[in-house]
Formats: sequence, C-alpha cells, structure tokens
Amino acid sequence: RINKQRLWDSLMEMGEIGGTEKGGCCRLALTDLDKQGRDLFVKWCEEAGCSITVDKMGNIFARRPGKDNSLPPVAMGSHLDTQPTGGKFDGVYGVLAGLEIFRTLNEQGIETQTPLETVVWTNEEGSRFPPAMVSSGVFAGVFDLEYGLSRADLDGKTMGDELRRIGYYGEAEVGDREFKAFFEAHIEQGPILEDEHKQIGVVTDAQGQRWYEITLTGQESHAGPTPMPSRRDALVGAARIVELVNRIGMENQPNACATVGLMQVFPNSRNVIPGQVFFTVDFRHPDAKVLERMDQALREGAAGIVEEAKLEMAFEQIWYSPPVPFAEQCVSSVRKAAEDLGLSHREMVSGAGHDACYIARVAPTSMVFVPCEKGISHNELERADADDLAAGCNVLLKAVLEHANG
Amino acid sequence: RINKQRLWDSLMEMGEIGGTEKGGCCRLALTDLDKQGRDLFVKWCEEAGCSITVDKMGNIFARRPGKDNSLPPVAMGSHLDTQPTGGKFDGVYGVLAGLEIFRTLNEQGIETQTPLETVVWTNEEGSRFPPAMVSSGVFAGVFDLEYGLSRADLDGKTMGDELRRIGYYGEAEVGDREFKAFFEAHIEQGPILEDEHKQIGVVTDAQGQRWYEITLTGQESHAGPTPMPSRRDALVGAARIVELVNRIGMENQPNACATVGLMQVFPNSRNVIPGQVFFTVDFRHPDAKVLERMDQALREGAAGIVEEAKLEMAFEQIWYSPPVPFAEQCVSSVRKAAEDLGLSHREMVSGAGHDACYIARVAPTSMVFVPCEKGISHNELERADADDLAAGCNVLLKAVLEHANG
Ligand SMILES: NC(=O)NCCC(=O)O
Ligand SMILES: NC(=O)NCCC(=O)O
Repeated sequence: RINKQRLWDSLMEMGEIGGTEKGGCCRLALTDLDKQGRDLFVKWCEEAGCSITVDKMGNIFARRPGKDNSLPPVAMGSHLDTQPTGGKFDGVYGVLAGLEIFRTLNEQGIETQTPLETVVWTNEEGSRFPPAMVSSGVFAGVFDLEYGLSRADLDGKTMGDELRRIGYYGEAEVGDREFKAFFEAHIEQGPILEDEHKQIGVVTDAQGQRWYEITLTGQESHAGPTPMPSRRDALVGAARIVELVNRIGMENQPNACATVGLMQVFPNSRNVIPGQVFFTVDFRHPDAKVLERMDQALREGAAGIVEEAKLEMAFEQIWYSPPVPFAEQCVSSVRKAAEDLGLSHREMVSGAGHDACYIARVAPTSMVFVPCEKGISHNELERADADDLAAGCNVLLKAVLEHANG
Repeated sequence: RINKQRLWDSLMEMGEIGGTEKGGCCRLALTDLDKQGRDLFVKWCEEAGCSITVDKMGNIFARRPGKDNSLPPVAMGSHLDTQPTGGKFDGVYGVLAGLEIFRTLNEQGIETQTPLETVVWTNEEGSRFPPAMVSSGVFAGVFDLEYGLSRADLDGKTMGDELRRIGYYGEAEVGDREFKAFFEAHIEQGPILEDEHKQIGVVTDAQGQRWYEITLTGQESHAGPTPMPSRRDALVGAARIVELVNRIGMENQPNACATVGLMQVFPNSRNVIPGQVFFTVDFRHPDAKVLERMDQALREGAAGIVEEAKLEMAFEQIWYSPPVPFAEQCVSSVRKAAEDLGLSHREMVSGAGHDACYIARVAPTSMVFVPCEKGISHNELERADADDLAAGCNVLLKAVLEHANG
C-alpha cells in the first residue's frame, strides 16, 4: 500500500508552485513556474534513484530499473501544467502517483521484472498552446515534431522557443521508446463518481473532440453616429454563434458538450462597434458520428449567421481527437485491482482528453479515475479527497505490478 | 480665409504621433504618445504668440489676446486623444482648426475685441478611461474633480496618476474661467453629409447616451466532463445580452443606437467554461424618453436572461449624458457663416458625444460638422477631404469672429 500522507504532502508542495489565493494553481505550460515544477519533480525522482531522460518536446521520463532492463518499461504518468484557473490535482496527481509508487517500492525493497517509468507529458492542457495533449501526440506519431515545436501562444511565442528558454528541450528523439503498458491516474473532472458514491472509475473509453478557431470580420465604426441597419458588428455575429454552439450541445444530449471558452474582441473599446472577434469552439461526444453531425450543424449555422450579419468568417477546425477505446487487458487490470482492494467502482467514459488517449495508439493503455468535489475542475476550487487519491494510487500500483511482473 | 494646406499639413504631422500602418492613429489618453501630441500643440501655440494654461484635469487653454483682455474669450477646441483604432481627424481637427485660425489672424494682423482661446480637452474618447468627455464634464461642473482624477483604466491606473506622470496635472482650478461662446468643429462621424452631398453640418442638438458596465458570474469548469444541463456559462449569458442589446437598438429605429463594444472573458481558455464575463453597453437616442424605455428593456431583458442561465449579475449604469440642445445664437452664427460663404449645409443632430455637449451647460455653444468618408470613424480608415476641412474651418472662423467682435 502506498503512503497516503506522503502522496498528499507532495501534491500540496507541488501545488505551491503557482499556488493561487483561492487554493488553486496557475502553472501554464513552459512558463518559469512550469520549469520550477519540473525541476522539483526531477529532484524527487533522482532522490528516489531514478534516471531521467528528456525528449525534444520536453517530455520527462523518470526510470526505475527492473530485473531485466532490456524489457520495455511499464509506464505511468500525466502532466504538470495547469489551466489559468487550475487546481492542484488535474494532471499532477497522475505524475505524483507514479512517484509515490516508486517511493513505496523502494521502501519495501521490491524489484519489478520490467523497469518502470513515470512520465511528465508537456502541455497537456492546451490552454497556452493549443491543441491539448500535443506532446503525447507527437510521441504517438499523431503530430510531427515540427508541428509540436511550432505551436504558439497568443503572443506568438512557440513551444520550441519556450522549451529552450526553460532548459527542457531534451536530447532524446520523441517517440523513441516503447512501453509494455501505460496507465494514467487522474481525477474524474466530472460529477459521476461523487454522485454515485464510487471511489474508482474504470475508464473504458474517452470521448472524441473537435476544436475550432473562428475569426469574424465586420467593420469597426463609431457606436454613436453609425445607424444600426448599416452596421457590420462582429460581436453580434459572434454572440449568435455562441448561442448556436450552446444549442448544438443541448440538442445532442445526453453526452454532447459544446463550449466557447475563449473570445477576443477588437478593438475592444466601449464606443466602437467591434470590427473583429476571434473565438474558439470545443465540441465533444463519445460517438464520432454524432461529433460529425455537430460539426455539420456548426458549419451550416455559422455560415447563415455571418451571411445575415454581413460579416466575413475565417473558420478552421484546428484539432480532431477521435473517440478512444482503451485496451481491454489494461482496463481489466484496473477493474481487478479495484475489486481485489475492495473498492467501490464503475466503468466510465472520460469526458476530458488525456495523454493516455494518444499513448493508447502506441501501447496498451488505460486510466484510473478518482472522484473530485462536485465534479469541478479547471477551476481553483478543484478538490479531491486524500483517501480517494490514495485508493486510486493503490489501484494504479496493483495494475502496474501485474503488467511489470506478468 | 484660412490656409487649407497649412491646416492639412498640421493634421498630418500630428497624426504621425501614434500613426498606424493602416493610416490611422492610436494615441490613447494620457499615454506617452498623448504627451507628445500635447507638447507639439503647445509648441505650435507658443510660436503663434499664445499663452498657455493647464488645469488640474490636464485641459490646455491656448490664449490669443484681444483688444480688451478683461472680456471673457470666445473659445474653440476639441480633443487630441484617439480610440485604439482611431483616425487622424476625430477631435484633432477641432483643435488644429483653432490653431489655424490663430495663424490666419496673425498673418493678416487682425486683433479681435475679446481674446480667443483654443482648448484641448483631456480624454474625450472615454476609451482608456470611461466615461467619455470626462474633463469637459468636470469643467462644466457635471462631475467633481475627485471623480475625474479617479477614473481608472482596465489596469487600474487613474487619470490623476497618469496626468502627473506625463506632466499635465496643471495648476489652474478646473472650470475657473468663463467663455463668451464655445464652438467645436468636428468630422460628422456619420454618413449623412456625404450621402446628401452637403459640406457643412449645422449642429442643433446632440443625442443622449447611457453607458453600462455588466459583469456576469457563473462557474468556470471543464469543457469536457461538465454536462451541459448543469453548466453556468457566463459567456452564453453575455451572448444573449449582446443579442438583446442589438434587438433593443433595432426596435427603436430610426435613431436608436445600441452597442456592446468591449468584452472580457475569464479565464479565457479554450477548454474551460467561462466563469465570468465583463462587458459594456452604449445606448443612444436624441429623445430622453426613448432612452429611458431602452434602459427599462435592457434591465428587464437582462434579468430574465441571467435567471434562466443561473448566473449572477452586477449591473451598473456608469454614465448618463442627456440630449443637448445647442444655443440658438451660436447655431445661427454657424448657419449664417455657411450661407455667407456659399457652402451647402444642413441642420443635424450629433450622434456622438462631444466636449461641446458639456460646455453647452456653462456657455453658449454650438458645433460645425464636415463630412467624413462613408461616415466611418473610430476606425483607422477614417478619412476627410482637405477642401471640406478648410470649409469647416472658414465657417468656424466667421462664427468666432462674429462673437469676438459683436
Ligand atoms: N484532463 C484535461 O483537463 N485535459 C485537457 C484537455 C481537454 O480539454 O480535455
Ligand atoms: N466624438 C467622439 O468620438 N466622442 C466620443 C464619445 C462618444 O462615444 O460619443
């Protein structure tokens, strides 16, 4: 069994880096704070006897040797970056659960057959540099390296530049290693486990996602003497598309999600009719066919709106992450571990994307979910219970050992 | 007659300070660029033999002595600050037309009975520091000095601090001088003169305005695993209010204007449901009663929207500028000047607010409009014709001389 208090203390210590007044964490990918978080993780892993490898996307691999180091490792991990209003658990838990397993095995003098690795994937959130999961995506061959390094934030800084700046542009080629299996522990980020009083989510699938960038262009002009009928107000058009996106989400219940999370208005002055608006759309559904229908509805609806509002539109789907079925042999190890430990559990589909979704393409993969308070995450109020976190970590330990020794 | 080329050249030279690639000007109130523009104006006025007074709101009074300097001056003027996507004419024209009149009178050795003044009013645009026309408002006693100096930009910097920083917190008490009359020349900022092929707008009234600040608060949460029905998406609420504002404008045609010009989304991340949105509303109408009906419709409509969307709302009307009738003796001088000069003209109501609207409370006041291309302003493409600008300046000269010598 892992050490609940030690896991909790590590989470709290890591959460101080970028810690916010409301008890959350703001540690955006490849900022100075992200570097501090990475440095602390590396220090902890070295203290636990691990060797460290960093690849060209800044992914960090902390390796605990096994009996036969010619075998591919069983790997665990998640991410250390957060949302602007992030919590202390999303991603960090999956990383520090891996570290806690190393510490537990060390303490008990247990040597596994295969080596073990705990991985930190760079920029999972996709908040500073879209899309999400970009570095596990490069690892899995979904994106090429050039695409990954050229992802840019709203100020035009690229991941490549920022990796070099913080000293995490590593030497290893991305994707140049094999995993026997990969497991990611994570908070659920939704309300189901809490509502049903279950401690463990056995994650069988992850839903698909489509991300879009839309720019509407009208004409900025004075809010006073410009008659309403002759206006080309980009924000009126954007508002209608926000409503359309929301309606598409509601019309595809249950399960569909549809969100406009980011919007920038130009020139953004009280007495100027907005001449340009940039915004994003995030569509999700477990069924690729429904996701395609949502895509169609958005394209058609938006085209009608901009025509009526006399606007120009630049419309781009910048990311498609199809629904992911996880590997049965890994899912069943998680299920069995929960059963053996006598923990309440249920199968579930992940609503969020995770690095595991991409790693699933190159290694047998699955995930372990634990409840989070009211299902709230990407919020400074994100909370998880120390007992639940420990339970999830024990499930992870058992599943990993089964694959590392089996 | 004034010197058309000299007026144009001064406009172009001033427009270089903050000049943009698209041919516009970005010289926000009390920035370093605004200081440069002010310094250039002061230098030009001193070269034209004027004495300079600056008051505690940074308003600049350039005085050309008359025969009887115990008489109150006839004043002209407007503002030098611009919108973020501003042009080279809005405001600047009214200031440099005053300077051009000084230069013309000097050249011809004309001494007026009363002194003349050209005034630069601080922060007319209200873009960086809302509301608009705040410093002419303090001058006219509409706002007190403390209110004026404490206006803050979105970064929390106040007008008082910024005035001190750029060296334009003057010694004169605000409002501590009398005008025999005040005239403001300005581009129309609407399409009417151009559409009707008229060169001069004889401005009889200005429409009323109400400005609002609205903050909607919901709950930020993950865009993936948070079910649509349980969301409290502040941007969905804001989008509905943008649509409501637009509808209120359309329902009160002709003449009503209704605009959401500024919006800030928080935390503004692609995969986070927006937890908070701040935005502004700008309502205008020449009839105070209609403006009140629009206010009612907004309050009722917004209350319904936020209730349905399970949001909290902070709603504040931050500014009310009632419709302004200009003084008949000044309006008729403008009309007569246009007639005497043989210029095509029509009476009109100003759609924009102007410093003249507040000065009208403390001195007989009116305005002279000239056409601007396609009625577009608050846009880098704002254009005016050198002949029209000269015509307006000649009308201003005649009207001013009538009052200064009459
Ligand atoms: N787990 C998580 O928050 N991932 C971010 C990518 C997504 O938006 O699904
Ligand atoms: N003239 C002008 O652009 N004034 C700014 C104040 C307003 O929005 O009416």
